[in-house]
Amino acid sequence: MQDRTDPDTTVAALAARFGGHAVGEADRRIRRCATLPDADAEALSFLANPRYVEPALESAAGCVLLSADHAARFEGRTLWVHDDPYFAFRQAMTVLHGFRPLPPVGIDAQAWIDDTAEVGELCTIRPGAYVARGAKIGRRVTLYPNVYVGKQAVIGDDCVLHPGVCVYDGCVLGDRVVLHANTSIGQDGLGYATAKAPEDDEVRHHKIPCAGNAVVEDDVEMGACCAIDRATLGSTVIGRGTKFSDHVVIGHGCTIGPHNLFVAGVGVAGSVTTGAYVVMGGQVGVAGHLTLGDGAKIAASSKVMHDVPPGESWGGTPAQPLTQTKRLLLQQQRLPELAAVVKRLERQVGALEARFDTGHA
Amino acid sequence: MQDRTDPDTTVAALAARFGGHAVGEADRRIRRCATLPDADAEALSFLANPRYVEPALESAAGCVLLSADHAARFEGRTLWVHDDPYFAFRQAMTVLHGFRPLPPVGIDAQAWIDDTAEVGELCTIRPGAYVARGAKIGRRVTLYPNVYVGKQAVIGDDCVLHPGVCVYDGCVLGDRVVLHANTSIGQDGLGYATAKAPEDDEVRHHKIPCAGNAVVEDDVEMGACCAIDRATLGSTVIGRGTKFSDHVVIGHGCTIGPHNLFVAGVGVAGSVTTGAYVVMGGQVGVAGHLTLGDGAKIAASSKVMHDVPPGESWGGTPAQPLTQTKRLLLQQQRLPELAAVVKRLERQVGALEARFDTGHA
Amino acid sequence: MQDRTDPDTTVAALAARFGGHAVGEADRRIRRCATLPDADAEALSFLANPRYVEPALESAAGCVLLSADHAARFEGRTLWVHDDPYFAFRQAMTVLHGFRPLPPVGIDAQAWIDDTAEVGELCTIRPGAYVARGAKIGRRVTLYPNVYVGKQAVIGDDCVLHPGVCVYDGCVLGDRVVLHANTSIGQDGLGYATAKAPEDDEVRHHKIPCAGNAVVEDDVEMGACCAIDRATLGSTVIGRGTKFSDHVVIGHGCTIGPHNLFVAGVGVAGSVTTGAYVVMGGQVGVAGHLTLGDGAKIAASSKVMHDVPPGESWGGTPAQPLTQTKRLLLQQQRLPELAAVVKRLERQVGALEARFDTGHA
Repeated sequence: MQDRTDPDTTVAALAARFGGHAVGEADRRIRRCATLPDADAEALSFLANPRYVEPALESAAGCVLLSADHAARFEGRTLWVHDDPYFAFRQAMTVLHGFRPLPPVGIDAQAWIDDTAEVGELCTIRPGAYVARGAKIGRRVTLYPNVYVGKQAVIGDDCVLHPGVCVYDGCVLGDRVVLHANTSIGQDGLGYATAKAPEDDEVRHHKIPCAGNAVVEDDVEMGACCAIDRATLGSTVIGRGTKFSDHVVIGHGCTIGPHNLFVAGVGVAGSVTTGAYVVMGGQVGVAGHLTLGDGAKIAASSKVMHDVPPGESWGGTPAQPLTQTKRLLLQQQRLPELAAVVKRLERQVGALEARFDTGHA
Repeated sequence: MQDRTDPDTTVAALAARFGGHAVGEADRRIRRCATLPDADAEALSFLANPRYVEPALESAAGCVLLSADHAARFEGRTLWVHDDPYFAFRQAMTVLHGFRPLPPVGIDAQAWIDDTAEVGELCTIRPGAYVARGAKIGRRVTLYPNVYVGKQAVIGDDCVLHPGVCVYDGCVLGDRVVLHANTSIGQDGLGYATAKAPEDDEVRHHKIPCAGNAVVEDDVEMGACCAIDRATLGSTVIGRGTKFSDHVVIGHGCTIGPHNLFVAGVGVAGSVTTGAYVVMGGQVGVAGHLTLGDGAKIAASSKVMHDVPPGESWGGTPAQPLTQTKRLLLQQQRLPELAAVVKRLERQVGALEARFDTGHA
Repeated sequence: MQDRTDPDTTVAALAARFGGHAVGEADRRIRRCATLPDADAEALSFLANPRYVEPALESAAGCVLLSADHAARFEGRTLWVHDDPYFAFRQAMTVLHGFRPLPPVGIDAQAWIDDTAEVGELCTIRPGAYVARGAKIGRRVTLYPNVYVGKQAVIGDDCVLHPGVCVYDGCVLGDRVVLHANTSIGQDGLGYATAKAPEDDEVRHHKIPCAGNAVVEDDVEMGACCAIDRATLGSTVIGRGTKFSDHVVIGHGCTIGPHNLFVAGVGVAGSVTTGAYVVMGGQVGVAGHLTLGDGAKIAASSKVMHDVPPGESWGGTPAQPLTQTKRLLLQQQRLPELAAVVKRLERQVGALEARFDTGHA
């Protein structure tokens, strides 16, 4: 993830490298990216969310990166016009700021590495990190202090495990996996059989052995305090390229597809399968044993209780197609009004009946 | 939790040991458990959830474990018929796979154990684990790396504390407690008195000292990243045999009863009391100072704002008896239809009134 | 936070020191605080929540602390009458119990402190804590085992970082900040630009460098497993005096105001701004880019999808002013009744139309 940075470039140079075109002072010097309110004459800022048009107009940014449809309102300003301003901004960030450097290479004498563990070349393992027996660590891996890699676990090349990460025994990470602080991979799932066993005098929750593991594929990144349960049998799988924010919890036996994007606080119960490019907003919950098709999108805080077909956007509790959810929400907001209409109708119908019954119609 | 395993048995032997009876090739050799799609001729698989009847019929499993009411559809197949297939499956798992072995016995020289701490016999304490002054650790306890046991804390026999677990000062764990990675027991609760104190120039949240502790009784297991607040006075209690999935948060002063089962993401506010065998689905929230009776069941993602009587199943937000919740949900789904009926009634009543008023009835 | 304690005082002495007045035996000896059911003749207990009047009447507490409006029902009892019983209770707690003492002062030889880090006087740094290069630690700071302070991070005076806390590189804590176990400050936010980049054969989530940091101001306390994302540019800010319970997640680029109070499980998406004294109940969610004004209050488990004006109390999903939410909830509860009325009206109107049409009115 270490790109070469160049904190002294121009609008024209950025456009030449990453697409789009410069408007205004094409050779204006750009030294940094900045938010709209913080930007100065040497800063590139960007407009992707339409609610920020006013702040963008007021910004002192030397150059504003935006799409063609917003450019008209910025007459006289230096602009970088691009079809995908957010992606172009990301590209500019890699050049102007770069990814933060990792700690210097080397295995600290105070890291605890079992003699039977294999560690690839050019790894950085900090004091207090622990690698159990039989574990395999790939090349150029960074293990921060207090990382735990369980026995027989496998960590691919170029992984970064931040402080307090725990990879349980037998779990597998692919290449370029990044796990943030205190995330845990492969703890036992909530697997109990509740019964009055022959030897017991009371009904108990009897633990089911967890003979499976958890597998995190290439290019996955997870935020802080995520928790991925190991499978009872087979593997819980997090597909390649998938990104989780903080506090995402995945139950045992799930198969999460490639390139999913889950915002913080998502909870997925056991044995759920998701396709590719599934997106879940913050605090979404998914009940067990469901399937979400490729490209399914779930609105924040929705609770999914049925399979979601590919390509559909669902929301609400219980979640249903978003157009339906919105219609229901609107109707719910109008409930007091509807109740008033019904009350009036009752009076009107009563009056009509009375007029009938008194025979005077 | 270490049972003796025997990965070479037969259907008849399993039934003889754990109840139920064999159908078909009773002496078929069984070497492992497997999920329905992964099972082969030497594998036992099981059918407990009716939605998996089709996969079970298609499975290559050498034996399917199921209840008598499903057996008829599996003619010609080797079956293990049992009244409680899920519990029988659990029993088979303990024989065929067993619980994963713990690290080898011993206290590592690089574990930090205060001279005043007491550690029972046959403990395993890994490097980087920390036991503070005056703490007491029982027998056969396993402390993984980076576990912290605070001063005067008490850990019972046969406990397993996974990496990053923190037990604060003065907290108490019973016997056979299992805590998964990065779970914390006994941090301060959210106790503040908000006031403009004499010495202050502004309203502040003044911290209330936390003089109580947290007590986790025998046979409790918690998933990763759970957080159990200590009490302000007295104890927060997690009752014996209770099981939590990941990310369960219990507020200060709660008394959680025995044999409760909380799915991931449950949050219980302070001073809540639950009876025995209370079950909460994922992401349930419970407001402070409530009481949930024995055997209460709360549907996933519900928010409980009133006491729940014993034995009742509640759901929704705010939670209410599940039959009521389902009726309301149904009515809500029909709201657009209801609104249309009301609109039609308005037209009809208007027409009736007009006919009256024009006197032509 | 270490006040001098005096576990032998009287009702009169407490009232003289902290306001209000004694009723009954003013010189009754008070040695401790206790909950209403646990209190004995030497204990002070308190009544703040009206639902506990009965337990207070039945309590054996030597003295009950309460407000004047409850006093009449406690005839013959020794009372401490105070305008703000909850705050007075807090004051009594500081005298009778005090804050729990911190570990003894000193930097352990087995703490890992980089040579280039600066550590102020009178710090306590336990074994297994790690301070990276260029970090600055203030005076009288306590770092428990397995705390990680990243490079160039700054920790103010009198901070307490409990086991497993992670402060990422470049992040800043003010004075008197308390972070409970496994809380993480400054991990990367969920910042990706999703695009088919020139060099790619598929659509991917391209990571945006996180060039900003997270700043936690003076007197902030956070519970266990909180997660505060660093900003992409600039700083994520948690305002002075703000208190979080466990499992609070703050997205990148948020500015949380001073003296906020967030109950456990709150999730705030990126770029949200809150004013002073904002309160959020448990499991509240806030969508990105919103503004909540000074003194806004959000009911537990509500999902905020619009800006909230200062001083308003909102609730529900989507959240709206609480009076409105309550009215809607009430209407929703009455939906089955409303549907029955509509069904009856349909019959009545049908009958009226029939009578018209048969011309017999």
